[in-house]
Formats: sequence, structure tokens, C-alpha cells
Amino acid sequence: MTAFTDPLAFDGPVTLALVEQADHADPLALLRERFSLPADVIYLDGNSLGALPRGVAEQVQRAVVQQWGEGLIRSWNDAGWYPAPGRVGARIAPLIGAQPDEVIVTDSTSLNLYKLVCAALALRPQRHRVLCEQGDFPTSLYMTRSAARQAQAEVMALNPEDVLDAIDEQVAVVVLTHVNYRTGRRHDLPVMTRRAHDMGALVLWDLCHSAGAMPCDLGAHGVDFAVGCGYKFLNGGPGAPAFAMVARRHQAGLSQPLTGWFSHAQPFAFEDEYQPAEGIARLLVGTPPVLSLLALESALQAFDEVDLQALRRKSLSLTGLFMRLIDQELGGLGFEMLTPRVADSRGSQVSIAHPLAYPIMQALIARGVIGDVREPNILRFGFAPMYIRHLDVWRAVAHLKSIVQSGVHHDPIYHQRKAVT
Amino acid sequence: MTAFTDPLAFDGPVTLALVEQADHADPLALLRERFSLPADVIYLDGNSLGALPRGVAEQVQRAVVQQWGEGLIRSWNDAGWYPAPGRVGARIAPLIGAQPDEVIVTDSTSLNLYKLVCAALALRPQRHRVLCEQGDFPTSLYMTRSAARQAQAEVMALNPEDVLDAIDEQVAVVVLTHVNYRTGRRHDLPVMTRRAHDMGALVLWDLCHSAGAMPCDLGAHGVDFAVGCGYKFLNGGPGAPAFAMVARRHQAGLSQPLTGWFSHAQPFAFEDEYQPAEGIARLLVGTPPVLSLLALESALQAFDEVDLQALRRKSLSLTGLFMRLIDQELGGLGFEMLTPRVADSRGSQVSIAHPLAYPIMQALIARGVIGDVREPNILRFGFAPMYIRHLDVWRAVAHLKSIVQSGVHHDPIYHQRKAVT
Repeated sequence: MTAFTDPLAFDGPVTLALVEQADHADPLALLRERFSLPADVIYLDGNSLGALPRGVAEQVQRAVVQQWGEGLIRSWNDAGWYPAPGRVGARIAPLIGAQPDEVIVTDSTSLNLYKLVCAALALRPQRHRVLCEQGDFPTSLYMTRSAARQAQAEVMALNPEDVLDAIDEQVAVVVLTHVNYRTGRRHDLPVMTRRAHDMGALVLWDLCHSAGAMPCDLGAHGVDFAVGCGYKFLNGGPGAPAFAMVARRHQAGLSQPLTGWFSHAQPFAFEDEYQPAEGIARLLVGTPPVLSLLALESALQAFDEVDLQALRRKSLSLTGLFMRLIDQELGGLGFEMLTPRVADSRGSQVSIAHPLAYPIMQALIARGVIGDVREPNILRFGFAPMYIRHLDVWRAVAHLKSIVQSGVHHDPIYHQRKAVT
Repeated sequence: MTAFTDPLAFDGPVTLALVEQADHADPLALLRERFSLPADVIYLDGNSLGALPRGVAEQVQRAVVQQWGEGLIRSWNDAGWYPAPGRVGARIAPLIGAQPDEVIVTDSTSLNLYKLVCAALALRPQRHRVLCEQGDFPTSLYMTRSAARQAQAEVMALNPEDVLDAIDEQVAVVVLTHVNYRTGRRHDLPVMTRRAHDMGALVLWDLCHSAGAMPCDLGAHGVDFAVGCGYKFLNGGPGAPAFAMVARRHQAGLSQPLTGWFSHAQPFAFEDEYQPAEGIARLLVGTPPVLSLLALESALQAFDEVDLQALRRKSLSLTGLFMRLIDQELGGLGFEMLTPRVADSRGSQVSIAHPLAYPIMQALIARGVIGDVREPNILRFGFAPMYIRHLDVWRAVAHLKSIVQSGVHHDPIYHQRKAVT
């Protein structure tokens, strides 16, 4: 099953028989049954919006009809709405290698980044520098700069390969995304974290493109803070609330400025003076969007008893196969590989550049092969190892080849821009 | 139908016949059919969590099964997820007297307060004082203080009756809640707003306990900013996202620190430099919780063609009747009225104090009469005029009387504290 992990090491041409053999030998093949996928779609955008796990629709319906409609306000106690942010966080914790009381689900990744950059700067009051990388997901840069401005700290946005050497004793916190959204390049989390700690700095990892696709082992590497997305590889549904992780050792001293009543030590005492809750609940702000939160909780059941190491192996096999097939089938058609070929250096997506990326992707989508594009010229394909098969990869490349060879992407219909790309 | 509006002006005892007559003459009686209410419940907590409007469960199911499950990422364009925050805001706008492009649905009330206090302070850079009131909903005080701290402004929290006279030319912004969550006391929004403007100050109104229960006429009174809750009288479901209103004249110069990618002028250009969107979209932060947002959108259909003036009249009749019956039926049983008896000075709830408020409310809830309690001794009853009948008020008071007269609330079972009160 791991035959395709390293596209460089693989000998000879990839054939359909080999691909089918890989699926046949896949120990995780049955996980696909945990999802409801349209029959006519090859879905390579689970890194943007995860597919619908089975059981979620029924759970959401119960939440609306029984918990809200019949239970009404009583459901805050009786249906467990009130402890849901911590409960769902505890369910995510093992997926990222954290302790149950180190993770909470609340707000969006953007907001959690803001809170934790503020919190990190407050823990390093003698330092006034934040390191991050150019080309990171924009909200990370925007929120980091805004949080730093509040604390009169400077933000240095470096090329990703220059970050490690720039971590010195001036740096308060290093804010990095584990897997880059555009290129699929994966940072060396253990090395970067160790370097930061050696310099007395803190690390804040954005796991948007890794949580749910690979183990992250935050605890093993002593990561201080992390944030991540509920709706990508965790499959929590459109705009599912995000998670935030704070290592236990930082929780008692944690201070963040979005001090809403849900983070109060006793929210239902309704005190005029703010007194922060103990522990991870300090990151809550207002009333959580319960329906979206319960959809995420239900979705996480798809991870029950899933071996994350095996998931990572499958993910690498899928991306490795895709890279290999791009080389084998699409040579001379104008594509350029953007994702690192070394397994340790990539996430669960592959990005390829082409001058006509946008119309090519629209033509692919019209054929049911769904990926997305990123400016200016990137075709992005996510391979969610929970439900993507090697055969899907094979077929996707065949469609891609057919489109570019036939020139069907020159049809003006595929050049019309949509709001969300 | 308006016979009970003013409990002081009403002559003679209230009888069941009069109560039934009021329901019979109620021009809004049929609105109750737009909601799915349990048969065995008198629901007087719509000011905390609104009841489930019919049609919402089906719409949420479609959003999960068809839009997410089958449409997948395509639904951001094809199902209109992307413009939903503005679209749902535009649907709320007429309910609060604002223009469609002045309202957006995003995040929680707490977060929107933070953004708009920051924005208001930035619009009055020469002033460094924020006025608010003691005893306001805690998150308002917490978030206002935190936002003010960022701008080195001071917060003066005054007794509500002292706020008007304290508005002077030092004040940048007055932050007030239209209807107080504990007492049901309603501020004079036009007078307060005019005074603030006369002094060159801005106003930020929290409409959590008024939107959906009465017209607010923000535009007519020139209100600068407002925030409010989606899950109380707007019935958007547990933790529904909140709304924020910014008068058009302030939108171009608006600046707020939670600069997530959804508030970028071109989110899908993925630029490293932040450039705020034009207009109200500047208040967005991260990806919205779509399922909760669409539940709210569907819920708002219950307001189609509803006359807000008639809704306010009915609300006053319900609260007036309740106050009258408290006086008539519960004299000498230890209750104290906390809500102003003057119609213009109250919202759509009535609060009464009793030393044994908590067990009395638990005994009421056990009988299907659902209100809530607020520390230290307040029984709180909300009267959502969309679905509450005068007969419900009559029956609720009868239950209340029976409980206190019989002493059943002394049963230890009713003294056990729950997490959410």
C-alpha cells in the first residue's frame, strides 16, 4: 500500500493494475463508508471543505427538532450544550497529540490566532518580535499583525526557509502554519519548535491543513499553542467552529483580550467584574453556534479507532501517486509541480501551477473532479485519506490530461470567475 | 386587545373571560402557527432562546444533506453561502429600522461589541472616555473595557439613570443596552442618542433584548452603531450568529482590529497585505458557521409581513397583563416587581424578585412553565409576542401562585443548582 509514498523512489510506469492493487491492500479502505459522497464526484477538495460524514444529518436534525424545538432553553443543561466547546475540544485533542483539557472549540481560526498571539506576547513581556512567514494563509498574517500592534510588537514575515535561522532571543513567538495552503509544503514542526524553545521563544502552530490528515504530536514536541480548522480534514461542515490548543503549563497565566462572558469563571453569576475561568475555557468569548458545533462533534465520530499513522501513510501514498502520475502523464503540457516531493516535507495536498489554472479547474469541476484554484495560477488538489481512493487519483489525472490535450478548457464558459474559487 | 398594556390604568379585576377575549381579538394570534412549540409547555424564555420556527428543521436538513453533502465546496457559490452574512443582515435590517447594507450577521454579540467599540474610539481620536452602565449584561462591560484598554480610553460605568447627564464633550461613545437583561427596563433610545450627538459623541446600542420584539427605528433616530443577538427574539437557534449595524456614514472610515480574511476587499486574492472591504463586510472575520447562519435565515421568515408596531402593542399587553396579575394574585407572597410599569420604559420581559427565586423557578419548570432566574433573586419571564398568548400569561401566574401557596418549592429537588440558570 505504501508503494507510491515516494514518487522519486518508484520504479517503472504506474499502471491501473498497480493502482487497483493499492486500493485493494489499503487497510483504511472501509473508512470511505463512513462518508456520504455523491456518486458522480471525485472530491479532491477535502482540504477546503471536508465531505459529509454519515450520521451528521441525523444528529443535526435531532439537535434542531428535539433539543431546540422541544427541549428549548433546558437543553443548555439537559442536552449538554453548555459543556460542548470543551467536550468537542477533548475529542479533537487525541487527533493532534494534545491532552483533553488542552483543546477547546470556539469561534474561527482567525479569532483564535488573535487571542493566542496576544496571549503569547503577554507571556514574553520583555520581547517584542513575532516571526511568521510570507505566503502564509492571509488571515494568519492579518491577525498576527493586528495582535502585535496592540502589544507594540513588530512582526517579521520571512521566506519560509529563512524562519529557522531567524529565531533568536529577541523573538517572543513564532507563528507558523504546519502545512502551507498554497504549496502543500510541510514545516518541520519538531525542529522549529525545539529551536524556538532553545531561544526562549514560544510557538503557535496553525494546523488547518494537517489536523485530521496526519498525527501532529503537539504534546510530544512540547508545542505551546495551536489553532486549527473544524471544516477541512476534520469534516465538521461549512464554517464549523475552530479549535484552539494551549499547553497546560501556560493555561494558568493565560491572558487574552476578547474577554466575553463565556470565558468568565462564573458566567451565570453575571458579575460586573471580569474574572477569567480556569483552564482552556478562558479562550471562549460569546455563546457558541450550537448547531454548527454539534455537527462538528458528530462528524468527529468518523475518526473513532482510526490509526493516525496509517492515515498519514495513506495520505502520502495518495499524494505520491498523484505526483508520479503528473510526471508520467502530463509532461510537456505546461504543468509545474509546486509541492515538495520529499514525503516529510509535504502535507495531504498537491499543488501544480499552470498558466490556465482557472479554466482547467472549471473544466475539471464540470466533469465532477473537484479541486480548487489559488491565485495566480495554482491548481490545488487535496487528498483526504479518510475517503479518497488511489483509483480516484488515477481518474482525476486522466480527466486532467484529457482536458488539456483536447483544449476544452479554452471554452469561454470556463473562464467566468466565481466569487469563491 | 390593548386593554392590558398599562397595568396602572386598567380598572377592575382581570378575569379569565377578559384574557380569552384579548386572545380572540389579537390580530397577531395566527403568528403562533409559524412556530413548533411543545404541547405541554408555556414558554416564557424566548428572551433567552427563541422557539423553533416551522420550516427551519427542513432548511437545515437541506443545508446538510444537499448543500454540504452533495454540493460540497461548490455550495459556497451555488447555494449562496458566501453572501449569506450580508443577505441575512439585510433581512434583519427592517426589523431594527436600518438599511439593508447597514447590517451584517457575524460572530457573537460579544465580538461585535468589541469591534464596534474599537471602531467608535478610532472615529473620535481626540476623546478618551466611554460611557456605559453598571448592571448591564456582563459581556458588554467586559468587552467594552477590553476594547477601551487597547485605545487607552477610560470606561465610566454609571447607574443607568445617571448616564444621560454624564454625556459631555469628553465622551467618545456611549455603549448601552436598549432593554436591560435583568430588569426589563428600556432606555429612551431617541433621547439618549440625541444627547450623545449633541455632545459630539457616538452611540452603540445593544439590541439583544429588543430586536424582534419591537421596532427599534435606528435610522429614524440616527443611531451610529448597534449589535444584537440572533437567538433571542429573532429565534435563530442556540448560539445563532449575532448581527452588527453600522450607519452608512461611518462605513467608509470604519476600522476594527479583528482583521480576518473574510473582511478583506478581495478574500480570494489571498494577498499578504490587508485591505479592508468596502462597507459592512469590514466587520467579518473568519469563515462563518454556515449551518447556524442558515438556521437563522430560515427562522427570520417567521417575520414576513409582521407589523412591528402591532407586535410591540401585543408585547406590552402581555407584559402588562402579567404585571397586573402579579399584583392581583400574588400579593403578600413575597414578590417584588423589578420591571418598570410605564409601558415606554419596559421591554418584552418582566422580572420579579423573590428570596426563593431559584427553587420557585425550578418548580415552575417542572410544571412546564419555563422562565429563568438571574442572580441573586430574580425570576425572569420573557413574553415573545410572536407566539405567546394572553392565556399563557394567565396560566403561568396560576401555576406560580399554586406553587408558592402550597410550598412545593421547598422540596430539596428544586434547590439543586444547574450549570446554566
